[in-house]
Amino acid sequence: MFIIGERINGMFKDIAAAIRARDPRPVQEWARRQELCGARYLDLSTGPSVKNPVKAMRWLVEVTQEVTDLPLCLDSTSFDVIEAGLELCRRPAMINAVPAEWPKMERVFTMAKRYNAAVIGLAMNEQGIPQDADTRVALFMELVAAASSYGIPMENLYLDPLVLPCNVGQVHGPEVIVALRQVKLLADPAPRTVIGLSNISQGTKNRELINKTFAAMAIANGVDAAVADACNNDLLEIIATARVIMNLDPYCDSYVDVYRKKT
Amino acid sequence: MFIIGERINGMFKDIAAAIRARDPRPVQEWARRQELCGARYLDLSTGPSVKNPVKAMRWLVEVTQEVTDLPLCLDSTSFDVIEAGLELCRRPAMINAVPAEWPKMERVFTMAKRYNAAVIGLAMNEQGIPQDADTRVALFMELVAAASSYGIPMENLYLDPLVLPCNVGQVHGPEVIVALRQVKLLADPAPRTVIGLSNISQGTKNRELINKTFAAMAIANGVDAAVADACNNDLLEIIATARVIMNLDPYCDSYVDVYRKKT
Repeated sequence: MFIIGERINGMFKDIAAAIRARDPRPVQEWARRQELCGARYLDLSTGPSVKNPVKAMRWLVEVTQEVTDLPLCLDSTSFDVIEAGLELCRRPAMINAVPAEWPKMERVFTMAKRYNAAVIGLAMNEQGIPQDADTRVALFMELVAAASSYGIPMENLYLDPLVLPCNVGQVHGPEVIVALRQVKLLADPAPRTVIGLSNISQGTKNRELINKTFAAMAIANGVDAAVADACNNDLLEIIATARVIMNLDPYCDSYVDVYRKKT
Repeated sequence: MFIIGERINGMFKDIAAAIRARDPRPVQEWARRQELCGARYLDLSTGPSVKNPVKAMRWLVEVTQEVTDLPLCLDSTSFDVIEAGLELCRRPAMINAVPAEWPKMERVFTMAKRYNAAVIGLAMNEQGIPQDADTRVALFMELVAAASSYGIPMENLYLDPLVLPCNVGQVHGPEVIVALRQVKLLADPAPRTVIGLSNISQGTKNRELINKTFAAMAIANGVDAAVADACNNDLLEIIATARVIMNLDPYCDSYVDVYRKKT
């Protein structure tokens, strides 16, 4: 599991203020810091309350690319905002995200093909987020079929079963775990899987404990990526350990340190 | 996942000394402490170096039962030692363990039926421990068939995929995870699963980190029980959290405290 660093997001006060003031320093500082911590992508989101989100996203892409070569994950509910960002990306980016709905899939997969971008596909449609694993997987099947028809290779499709906070949607937890496994049976080569790690603990009391526990559980069920806090030491230690247990990285006594250096 | 407390074992120096001196205090202290920490069974093992293991096991059973009503898990490679202990157990016990071999299965399942004991069945036979999940599951199938033929109900059969230390048998890790899942498909109702949690970290540098990570990973794959350190706070917190995520216990802000009180 690699990490898509979640920190450059207008939901955080420092980033919201930076966007308003067009002050690149907080954005660039978080870009550098997350890269040092081992993030493989940087998620960019203007947040919901920005005045001109197209301009804000373009600004975020530009100032982030001034300080890092990491690929970007453009995160918006508006596809116009995402496309405005894609036009400026110097490296193949990731689109965050598309539900299993027409004509949204047409718009996103067309963009993804044009810009050689990866896509996060969500287990939801007009009816919302299903509760059980089977319906999630049925929506994934629609995303797989649509992506294929637009020529998106499976290694560029990241399917997100959409975990809910365990204090309000606890019944979803085991269903998400099962859905993660079943994705790997949908195509050969298999599509990839991604989770929004911090979602599991929204509004709970001990967020770090819940996040790191869920990370180990997801890795044990083959998850490929997580939108997460790239700089949380406890989380990184658990991820490094789960990777060793799954035989994804070789064991040595200092594997935690090696993981930090390598990533 | 419930815990079978591992601490009353002659591999630990204090217990070895207590057995030699027939001093009940260390044994009874660990029995009480593990019960307070929430252990559901207490594992009893004389260790390998005791002179008269039959007498030692009978003594362990007697002194342990003086201070706790918890059921016991009799742990020995000698079935005579286990049977000597079973004769004294006041509550249905657990037998730890039998491989998928004849005539060992005959001896153990006959005892289990007579004493209404649960049995831990090991994914090994005369050829040793297989590396892959499929061969582990084939051995489980033999254990399921044998147990059924002796009238042992599936809820009394705990199948152990035998995890190896990740510093020497790293390739086994993902195979053990898959084997845990597949056990649940072998019969209806399904047999139970158990792991020797601490085995994953034998000889490694950061045992607690590895143990607790593996616990979350195993719970996410349906494990029912673990022979483990019942009094490790970090481990108990991760287990409580994984149980909440799997919707096995209800979420509340103080779920960790509730878990400690309940168990």
